[in-house]
Amino acid sequence: MEPTARDAACFEAGIKFGALYHQFAGTPVSPESAPSLERAVEESIENQPFCESVSVDILTEKLAAEIDHGYTELTGRFMEVEIAVEREGTEVVTRMAMEDGYPLMKIESVRED
Amino acid sequence: MEPTARDAACFEAGIKFGALYHQFAGTPVSPESAPSLERAVEESIENQPFCESVSVDILTEKLAAEIDHGYTELTGRFMEVEIAVEREGTEVVTRMAMEDGYPLMKIESVRED
Amino acid sequence: MEPTARDAACFEAGIKFGALYHQFAGTPVSPESAPSLERAVEESIENQPFCESVSVDILTEKLAAEIDHGYTELTGRFMEVEIAVEREGTEVVTRMAMEDGYPLMKIESVRED
Amino acid sequence: MEPTARDAACFEAGIKFGALYHQFAGTPVSPESAPSLERAVEESIENQPFCESVSVDILTEKLAAEIDHGYTELTGRFMEVEIAVEREGTEVVTRMAMEDGYPLMKIESVRED
Repeated sequence: MEPTARDAACFEAGIKFGALYHQFAGTPVSPESAPSLERAVEESIENQPFCESVSVDILTEKLAAEIDHGYTELTGRFMEVEIAVEREGTEVVTRMAMEDGYPLMKIESVRED
Repeated sequence: MEPTARDAACFEAGIKFGALYHQFAGTPVSPESAPSLERAVEESIENQPFCESVSVDILTEKLAAEIDHGYTELTGRFMEVEIAVEREGTEVVTRMAMEDGYPLMKIESVRED
Repeated sequence: MEPTARDAACFEAGIKFGALYHQFAGTPVSPESAPSLERAVEESIENQPFCESVSVDILTEKLAAEIDHGYTELTGRFMEVEIAVEREGTEVVTRMAMEDGYPLMKIESVRED
Repeated sequence: MEPTARDAACFEAGIKFGALYHQFAGTPVSPESAPSLERAVEESIENQPFCESVSVDILTEKLAAEIDHGYTELTGRFMEVEIAVEREGTEVVTRMAMEDGYPLMKIESVRED
């Protein structure tokens, strides 16, 4: 079956999430450097086509509690992300947060004009 | 509006594509090392949830024609990828290839049971 | 032969360069998002052991002249980097810039106490 | 002070290590897909200038013991790496393995002709 505009919008939202995660996972991060990394991740992914907004929250308290060499590598355990995509009149809002010890990415809502 | 199972399947397919691209873009690659990289990319992404199959074709002739230090960094210009995802009875087949000088990712087909 | 403190300092400087390049190559970047990325790259690599300072200059004019979808993927052609490392009294200053069409990383100076 | 050939060889060895680690950290890996990833990592980094050999051992038993969603993201805890570099008659052998809960990279030996 042919993909619909709605399918394409959901697909785009997934691309942004996969891109964000695998581009930045492994980046050295500390509570001090977290704010500049949040900003850079948001602005870099917002460059991609159809991307309306990206909001990244690095969990600095969790980071501070768990690291013991002053920094660690960024991974899904240490961030919450929300991404909104709009393509051909369909808006998809997606979110990543920890669930059962695993960084789960999911669609929050889909809105068609 | 609540996301459907079909939305979720399209979203998953996008995640795999974004992950594949941003995990492996930048990898040093030559015509000689391309086969092992193709295999590793396929098998690593196939580990991810809901991923049925991944097929990666690194364009070694194009690579050979364009590199001049014996190797280059992998980027979308040098690969074609097909990924099939199945989630809750919906199968989504997606593909990346060059279009207008840009590595375009798109859905080929969506099949619901 | 046993490695010296000076060997170890040069090795550390190399680690930082390889890390910086391969962590961030492929990041979507535009002239507008370049400043936040410069900052995040600097602060993330400065987290690593023995790293005194990192200075990243993304070449926004070159970027603006060459991109045609509003953004591109960060690669060595678009940045100049200087990294200083100090380990056990040896300071190593290193630099990456384009040379003969290739992003060349090299040691600028080594200073032993 | 001017860098020596030996300094440059140690610097090169570091670059390979940083590159290897930050290119492939975050890659989805399972005991089943580990062999193809080991091979691809070795062959990709061997493409880089002055790189004589790369040997990657992904610790599949440790991997099997610790994962609980069938796969995990590759990180320093799950691999041992040896890299040999030769530049202008200096050979540097380097190694990464866990030490005190941290993936430590160090020079094993330096040999000048």
